[in-house]
Amino acid sequence: MDAVSMRPVRLTMDFLKNAHSSCLVEFGNTRVIVSAMAEEGVPEFRMEKGGWITAEYAMLPASTPRRKQRDGAKKDGRGVEISRLIGRSLRSGFELSEIPGYTIRVDCDVLDADGGTRTASITGAFCAVYDLLRKLTEQGKLPKMPGCKNIAAISVGMVDGEYMLDLCYREDSNAEVDMNVVMSGDGGIIEIQGTGEKHPFTYEQMQDMLALAKDGIFQLFDLQNEVLMKGE
Amino acid sequence: MDAVSMRPVRLTMDFLKNAHSSCLVEFGNTRVIVSAMAEEGVPEFRMEKGGWITAEYAMLPASTPRRKQRDGAKKDGRGVEISRLIGRSLRSGFELSEIPGYTIRVDCDVLDADGGTRTASITGAFCAVYDLLRKLTEQGKLPKMPGCKNIAAISVGMVDGEYMLDLCYREDSNAEVDMNVVMSGDGGIIEIQGTGEKHPFTYEQMQDMLALAKDGIFQLFDLQNEVLMKGE
Amino acid sequence: MDAVSMRPVRLTMDFLKNAHSSCLVEFGNTRVIVSAMAEEGVPEFRMEKGGWITAEYAMLPASTPRRKQRDGAKKDGRGVEISRLIGRSLRSGFELSEIPGYTIRVDCDVLDADGGTRTASITGAFCAVYDLLRKLTEQGKLPKMPGCKNIAAISVGMVDGEYMLDLCYREDSNAEVDMNVVMSGDGGIIEIQGTGEKHPFTYEQMQDMLALAKDGIFQLFDLQNEVLMKGE
Amino acid sequence: MDAVSMRPVRLTMDFLKNAHSSCLVEFGNTRVIVSAMAEEGVPEFRMEKGGWITAEYAMLPASTPRRKQRDGAKKDGRGVEISRLIGRSLRSGFELSEIPGYTIRVDCDVLDADGGTRTASITGAFCAVYDLLRKLTEQGKLPKMPGCKNIAAISVGMVDGEYMLDLCYREDSNAEVDMNVVMSGDGGIIEIQGTGEKHPFTYEQMQDMLALAKDGIFQLFDLQNEVLMKGE
Amino acid sequence: MDAVSMRPVRLTMDFLKNAHSSCLVEFGNTRVIVSAMAEEGVPEFRMEKGGWITAEYAMLPASTPRRKQRDGAKKDGRGVEISRLIGRSLRSGFELSEIPGYTIRVDCDVLDADGGTRTASITGAFCAVYDLLRKLTEQGKLPKMPGCKNIAAISVGMVDGEYMLDLCYREDSNAEVDMNVVMSGDGGIIEIQGTGEKHPFTYEQMQDMLALAKDGIFQLFDLQNEVLMKGE
Amino acid sequence: MDAVSMRPVRLTMDFLKNAHSSCLVEFGNTRVIVSAMAEEGVPEFRMEKGGWITAEYAMLPASTPRRKQRDGAKKDGRGVEISRLIGRSLRSGFELSEIPGYTIRVDCDVLDADGGTRTASITGAFCAVYDLLRKLTEQGKLPKMPGCKNIAAISVGMVDGEYMLDLCYREDSNAEVDMNVVMSGDGGIIEIQGTGEKHPFTYEQMQDMLALAKDGIFQLFDLQNEVLMKGE
Repeated sequence: MDAVSMRPVRLTMDFLKNAHSSCLVEFGNTRVIVSAMAEEGVPEFRMEKGGWITAEYAMLPASTPRRKQRDGAKKDGRGVEISRLIGRSLRSGFELSEIPGYTIRVDCDVLDADGGTRTASITGAFCAVYDLLRKLTEQGKLPKMPGCKNIAAISVGMVDGEYMLDLCYREDSNAEVDMNVVMSGDGGIIEIQGTGEKHPFTYEQMQDMLALAKDGIFQLFDLQNEVLMKGE
Repeated sequence: MDAVSMRPVRLTMDFLKNAHSSCLVEFGNTRVIVSAMAEEGVPEFRMEKGGWITAEYAMLPASTPRRKQRDGAKKDGRGVEISRLIGRSLRSGFELSEIPGYTIRVDCDVLDADGGTRTASITGAFCAVYDLLRKLTEQGKLPKMPGCKNIAAISVGMVDGEYMLDLCYREDSNAEVDMNVVMSGDGGIIEIQGTGEKHPFTYEQMQDMLALAKDGIFQLFDLQNEVLMKGE
Repeated sequence: MDAVSMRPVRLTMDFLKNAHSSCLVEFGNTRVIVSAMAEEGVPEFRMEKGGWITAEYAMLPASTPRRKQRDGAKKDGRGVEISRLIGRSLRSGFELSEIPGYTIRVDCDVLDADGGTRTASITGAFCAVYDLLRKLTEQGKLPKMPGCKNIAAISVGMVDGEYMLDLCYREDSNAEVDMNVVMSGDGGIIEIQGTGEKHPFTYEQMQDMLALAKDGIFQLFDLQNEVLMKGE
Repeated sequence: MDAVSMRPVRLTMDFLKNAHSSCLVEFGNTRVIVSAMAEEGVPEFRMEKGGWITAEYAMLPASTPRRKQRDGAKKDGRGVEISRLIGRSLRSGFELSEIPGYTIRVDCDVLDADGGTRTASITGAFCAVYDLLRKLTEQGKLPKMPGCKNIAAISVGMVDGEYMLDLCYREDSNAEVDMNVVMSGDGGIIEIQGTGEKHPFTYEQMQDMLALAKDGIFQLFDLQNEVLMKGE
Repeated sequence: MDAVSMRPVRLTMDFLKNAHSSCLVEFGNTRVIVSAMAEEGVPEFRMEKGGWITAEYAMLPASTPRRKQRDGAKKDGRGVEISRLIGRSLRSGFELSEIPGYTIRVDCDVLDADGGTRTASITGAFCAVYDLLRKLTEQGKLPKMPGCKNIAAISVGMVDGEYMLDLCYREDSNAEVDMNVVMSGDGGIIEIQGTGEKHPFTYEQMQDMLALAKDGIFQLFDLQNEVLMKGE
Repeated sequence: MDAVSMRPVRLTMDFLKNAHSSCLVEFGNTRVIVSAMAEEGVPEFRMEKGGWITAEYAMLPASTPRRKQRDGAKKDGRGVEISRLIGRSLRSGFELSEIPGYTIRVDCDVLDADGGTRTASITGAFCAVYDLLRKLTEQGKLPKMPGCKNIAAISVGMVDGEYMLDLCYREDSNAEVDMNVVMSGDGGIIEIQGTGEKHPFTYEQMQDMLALAKDGIFQLFDLQNEVLMKGE
């Protein structure tokens, strides 16, 4: 069944030259540059509790066919919501207590938006943070590689009564149900956000969509491990 | 099993005197004032498509034991995220095409925060909007009462390995899994947001929690219908 | 003479559950929630001079028949002016040097606006701050109850050539002269702000209005003392 | 009695070259540049009700011995309060219905602050607005000179138990009572704002201070009429 | 003389997928994504005068070794200055009267910053705008390709007493003199901005640097014409 | 040749009463108040490197025939650009390492704008800073007068094919080429910013304009030295 396959996914590490670590993520026509930067110091509420990971998500003005204004004094609500989701997901994947004294700042800048920018961001951000922590460990700034498990995300939905995986923009706009699923390498659910855009959905539909999402996410784990040259 | 019962819930209509419609929602010690105000005109993207419902969520500075600064130039990310969830949920409950020419502005102001402020807000907001639309219909501003179905929400989670319904703040802070579920009167899922705060969760756990949430939400539907004197 | 009596006033202490201290003030249909929160530390300019009291005033969006937008990057000038008046009035009532090391933050959130929200705020805020200081003293955080004298406020004006006390919104809108008076328990004037809205006013009129205000304010002092169970 | 005389006051019209109308006001060492600019169009709430007058007050950063930061995203509360007072006072002096279709924008920029900047601003602003309206009338943009009466303001207070008129900064800082009085040409009170900075004040003191203020303000009326070459 | 050659320059058209037109510019390790988007309508001051071109410049947070905060309420002064320079330079290159009814919005987002980001931006932006106008012409939205001449820019400076062309970040930081030159295809100077960072410079030095810049810029014109397949 | 002479220039020291140092600069009808204020402490990036000089430029709302809105949350791009130019120019004129521990804040507030406000600002700011440093030295806050050389600026351009020095607004609006030149007392170029407003310009034209600017600037140096009673 063709509709339930993912779009071609590509992860390109070290896409940026000055960033401490970076990854260009492509899910079909969606492209996001993800970077991870280490800063000494942690927010006050993390004092004596280990490190912190936080994320910001933004779209280049020309990433959509109609130019999107940059954030100024007034922040775009959707961007704030996505930034929080990315940060939360990443913090679930890494043992923060083993990153003492560091704040990892992740930036996800969308070059081309064609649906699934948040799930692409999460999937690429795991690679960027993993890579950064490995570098910090190699530089002796961390005593050992912090414990972690893969984190990846995919969207799934129902369009015209059919299940769809990794919806592109046109599909997403027509979806009756739209769900974003974040999972960890052990197959557990990290975050699930499902919205009945046109009508409510049932338990059974949710279960079917979750199974579909899991299939997709495990393919993403393989891709992550490959570019990070890491077995799990 | 005591842990899986909800806290006492109370819905008090017309709590405010100047608001077009209002509801004081209490879930245990959590209290939120919800108001709904009708404005003529709709946002540009809704032109010729019917009405619109939008929501804002804020906490009184003294609603938490440690004073919370008011939003200024910089908006609190969590508040933005919750505002968007409330608006989205409400729009699922009402036939927007039958509210032509009106924007309904819902405000949820938290008096006392003890967990579950967003689910209390959604549950009360349905009542406030329903009541407002009924008034607009009675005033002849709408040709007929717009189609709608109940919308209510509850939180559910796992604390110390036990399932919990309608978590208070202390429970929420210790939850391993925290899930907010929004359902419509027909038992369909409108929105589900689950986060594995301490570790991922499994399909089975999610299913158990969803069943628990459904029980709670149907009790909320009964309460809503009672205060709105509406059978469904 | 009926026009010169006040609207029914009610002061309900501990209206909020998480606030350190709070008071719901009602002047007729006007209702304001006032809270007082203690924070350790004082602003720089108060270093080594004792404590500080500051206030913020805001209206719930649905507190007026036409929804009022929340403050964002741009602050509402009227709100700023009222916030400053409340803070200044309260600081006159308490011996700041006897609150060393603490900043008391007062928040006045208007639930229903029907004229006199600023005078209601001041009157209730005195109770909230008094109660908070008593608690801090009982908790041993202050060596002794700080010196203080009652502070209360009332509006007075001229409508259609008649003197009016405690104007409601409709009266206020039609007032030729509008005056807000803040007094201390010894009958001294703390602050007087009078505006000839439609035409200037004379000395004699001002004197008459002040006498009227004084009558009203002394009734408010009695009410304050009653709810605080304090003789003066 | 020397303490109750005003500082030397000077009003210099047309101090600016590009402004439609302007006045440099000096009260002793306090100097404020006031300008008035006419704009076609009125705010929405004034539609079909005549014109509008509004004011902004700001201090040059170097107008005080310790540099004052410019207003940015965050506005200085004191400045907002003073801007509102100036606008309100001016609107009392002119027959707005006779300025149809115009918004008069008054800007008061303090060059040197030595107490009384708000009363100096009001006193000078009357001249700038009067002069602007006369020019608009001469240019045929207004059918006839709008009705008006002089508006001027002075501060009065008690320092070390003595009454003082037109307090300079040092006196103002030590004042027990500080009162700003705005009067119209007929001797009526337009606005009175009195604050017991150190302790409350009595009716009698207020009356004495008002009488003192009146004396001062009538001297200001004479000065205004002189520079405007207008008898009243 | 090796020091006076440019770094390798690459212009890659259509780097973005949704942008109306785009160009990835590389000057050595400096990389900037430039996009051009057409919007119907022009700013008020351009009404009936033809079209408008405006630009925004920003750096990705990870484009520098130390993460750079995104612009929020407070804008970065340097970014504002560069945005204005880019817009001004582009407007010199195109016959605005021949772009009636359109605003062209150019966005320059720096991926990697290693000196010369503003000159790279201008050089790439010419290509993006040219390409966009060609597309609009082909789509019949413009009656004919608007008149234009190439616009390109380069930096030149003195480091340790030696002339340098196209300074990288390390060179720029040590430069005694730093000059940015924008020229048009006919060899005329569009904009020159020179700063004596460490000491003033002389006429003769300026002349030498200008000659060097001209050499570099004419190489850039050739590159532009090549990627645009346009002879001039 | 009359067109190439400067407008009458006047520098009036100590125009403000509270500022630590100030200068009223007049270039024809252009008038700017410049102040310099000393603050203890330096920005973080200057720690252990000596002092700092920074500048802010703003226009009074009524300094132009059409009222200019004050800067609020959104800053005027042109003002930011000019502020940076003034700061940069001043820092070139003074030996920052000899102002240890101090930040000098320069404010340039335009009273009347008739072209050349930025060059007038720079020219006057040199005087204000010089005078401030002399005072700090006399007060013993600086061990010796910091090393410095005069800094002054002038605009030059081409209007209707003719060279013009110190353009007024009308000339500036019609200029084909507009150039601002900042020079130091030894005749070296500190900053040059030239823009071909209507068409590009040639080397030869630039050289002619620079020579003209130099003539003007040396006259400004003489004026500066005169008011500062300083030989150079």
